Amino acid sequence: MDKKRLAANDAKAAAGNGLLDRRSLLGAATTGSMTALIACPAAKSELALEPWMREPGSPFVGYGQPSRFEVKVTRISSTAPGTIGTGASRTPHQFLNGTITPNGLHFERHHSGIPDIDPEVHRLLIHGLVKRSLVFTVEALARYPMESRIAFIECGGNSGALYQKEPAALGVQALHGLVSCAEWTGVRLAALLEEAEVDPKSQWILAEGADAAGMSRSIPIAKAMDDAILGLYQNGERIRPSNGYPIRLLLPGYEGNMNVKWLRRLKVTEAPTMTKDETSKYTISLPNGQALQFVFPIEGKSVITHPSPGLTMKGAGLYEISGLAWSGYGKITKVDVSADGGKSWAPAALQEPVLSKALTRFRIPWRWNGAPSVLQSRATDETGYVQPTRAQLLADRGMRTIYHFNGIASWAVGENGEVTHIYA
Amino acid sequence: MDKKRLAANDAKAAAGNGLLDRRSLLGAATTGSMTALIACPAAKSELALEPWMREPGSPFVGYGQPSRFEVKVTRISSTAPGTIGTGASRTPHQFLNGTITPNGLHFERHHSGIPDIDPEVHRLLIHGLVKRSLVFTVEALARYPMESRIAFIECGGNSGALYQKEPAALGVQALHGLVSCAEWTGVRLAALLEEAEVDPKSQWILAEGADAAGMSRSIPIAKAMDDAILGLYQNGERIRPSNGYPIRLLLPGYEGNMNVKWLRRLKVTEAPTMTKDETSKYTISLPNGQALQFVFPIEGKSVITHPSPGLTMKGAGLYEISGLAWSGYGKITKVDVSADGGKSWAPAALQEPVLSKALTRFRIPWRWNGAPSVLQSRATDETGYVQPTRAQLLADRGMRTIYHFNGIASWAVGENGEVTHIYA
Repeated sequence: MDKKRLAANDAKAAAGNGLLDRRSLLGAATTGSMTALIACPAAKSELALEPWMREPGSPFVGYGQPSRFEVKVTRISSTAPGTIGTGASRTPHQFLNGTITPNGLHFERHHSGIPDIDPEVHRLLIHGLVKRSLVFTVEALARYPMESRIAFIECGGNSGALYQKEPAALGVQALHGLVSCAEWTGVRLAALLEEAEVDPKSQWILAEGADAAGMSRSIPIAKAMDDAILGLYQNGERIRPSNGYPIRLLLPGYEGNMNVKWLRRLKVTEAPTMTKDETSKYTISLPNGQALQFVFPIEGKSVITHPSPGLTMKGAGLYEISGLAWSGYGKITKVDVSADGGKSWAPAALQEPVLSKALTRFRIPWRWNGAPSVLQSRATDETGYVQPTRAQLLADRGMRTIYHFNGIASWAVGENGEVTHIYA
Repeated sequence: MDKKRLAANDAKAAAGNGLLDRRSLLGAATTGSMTALIACPAAKSELALEPWMREPGSPFVGYGQPSRFEVKVTRISSTAPGTIGTGASRTPHQFLNGTITPNGLHFERHHSGIPDIDPEVHRLLIHGLVKRSLVFTVEALARYPMESRIAFIECGGNSGALYQKEPAALGVQALHGLVSCAEWTGVRLAALLEEAEVDPKSQWILAEGADAAGMSRSIPIAKAMDDAILGLYQNGERIRPSNGYPIRLLLPGYEGNMNVKWLRRLKVTEAPTMTKDETSKYTISLPNGQALQFVFPIEGKSVITHPSPGLTMKGAGLYEISGLAWSGYGKITKVDVSADGGKSWAPAALQEPVLSKALTRFRIPWRWNGAPSVLQSRATDETGYVQPTRAQLLADRGMRTIYHFNGIASWAVGENGEVTHIYA
């Protein structure tokens, strides 16, 4: 065994049960040792000529699609009984990497299906407590100065199953798939509100969608004047129908349904409108019978995507633990990872650029010894907020709600390499 | 006319022919004045109930698609006579905004069509001047530590039509559409080369694709050890077949075809292999009969996407001029814009985050007075390199090549609002 192959045994431990220093796989220190575990020595110096090298490939198409070998990489959806489009579809984070969610896989939450909106007919009205009511065509809106930002959107109900008494036998997609991230481009809402001249006594804005549910939420005017965007583009192209075509309100960091899709109306008001989706729904029922209403930003949170249920480990050896962290309050500053159920923690590497209110990818190398292990991640954001344990969160919130679950999630790795969802 | 509506006339001029200070549209200073030109006063306080609000919308699908009203947003392709998949397809930048190119619209350059590769069968061989030859399955490669970066890829032949004597009557897609940008995720090539133990006397690596053309290029080993990535994911999902599924070599900043798609073989060598695509093609023929070979990084460059041919201006008034800038040498530090054919220039705003070797979106407000105008943009990168005029570039290069055109491009705006490609 040569010197390089011994190096893995010298890699600096960063926490218990095999977590290695986050920098140890970036250089040569341990990679040599991965040879025997992962790559194979070449049996001959040339490869076989595969069938696809023997004849010309397929021609160009105008709008491309994924490989036919990746059909498993799809959203899974659930709909309310008796409806065709009321429900949610979830992003398959176990099959993705990086931070951008491709548009075809962005999660959805619809309250009455996806409207088929003609952008020539669609209008956006700004009215209420303004000096002048304004109507915008999509074309008119697109003439305004634009702004782009990479931002996550997370449904207030994401991870809600973790409030249940017993851990659901599900994976990262089913449990945590109601969060996605894209580069959004559109017009600053503040510019349009200044043009309409908002009455100084107004404190709220009702935002209404053009779906059959007329899904609507009350937005604090301070947020509208801060970083709100009327989104027209998602990852470069016009926003998809499933994400609000032709206009979506973007409130970076705020819970998903406040980012109203198919936006048709903004009404400036003194008080919140108390719509269905901010009273009976999207409020947090507490054990004492009271409810936390208007909990807008998403609290600091993280989840491990690799490994996760369905991604079975192939025997002891070196792996990368990787996942996503995010906060509606700003940037993620740290993600700690544990391989021993929270007894010890090591800081993961954060993929640059770390952006405010965007998904952040974290990674850390792990030398799995083949024994049962429990993997956890814990995010810290720039306000100093630390993601709580599930027990801490439930002590505050109780279990009568499905909203804003951001407690630490746990994956158990069995001796057979199988990964399962547990409470730990 | 109230005070706010007068503000536009007070907006600070930044250069001749109506270019305004890049900050003037971010606040209220000029937006009020846009009302009369763009938005309309609301005729009534409520909007009509459109047909799509009267019945439930469509159900969920596993993998989403753009709106049927956006079918015009498609790549256009051209193929060599007698072939079905040898040619190129171009990104419709006139219809996009932001910096990320959605995967379905990333440009393509294929030398023998798109191979339909089974990732279970595909292998990557590293051999040649190494201590140990290695073979990787895709699954094995995916176990290594990953890295993500947002990077542009540009074909060496992009904008090649601007070497022609007369300006082609084409738009930004046909002229400049062989550049796109994505978040790529994969494994550092350096880690694998260290594992294989490269012989110290090796200077080059032959990278070969698994298409029927066996498209191959020689890569300097210094680049391979620097920031080269074996890409597995593009904007979160597995790379599409049209972009190299299942493995693509990424050489950030280097001309497109060096980012070898369908990567099957890396052979470490002492000298460059002198393949067809680095000798008879992808070298720059000079007027004196000599050729510039191995011109790898893309030089600093920019192009205005809005307005551009096909996007007709709707009368005098305020517009946003917007476009893309990039450099294979690092970050873009400045983009100047001219509305008078290069007589005067004003700095555009650069959309943050500005990333090294990635597309950078620039924007600047323009008050068009309705008279004929010539729009240009000029990029500067972090090395201090300034994008040359077309005349300067041709003085160096001559007109016997189609590669690495990065001269300043010009759009003429006519009195009727029509935008055309000219030389200026």
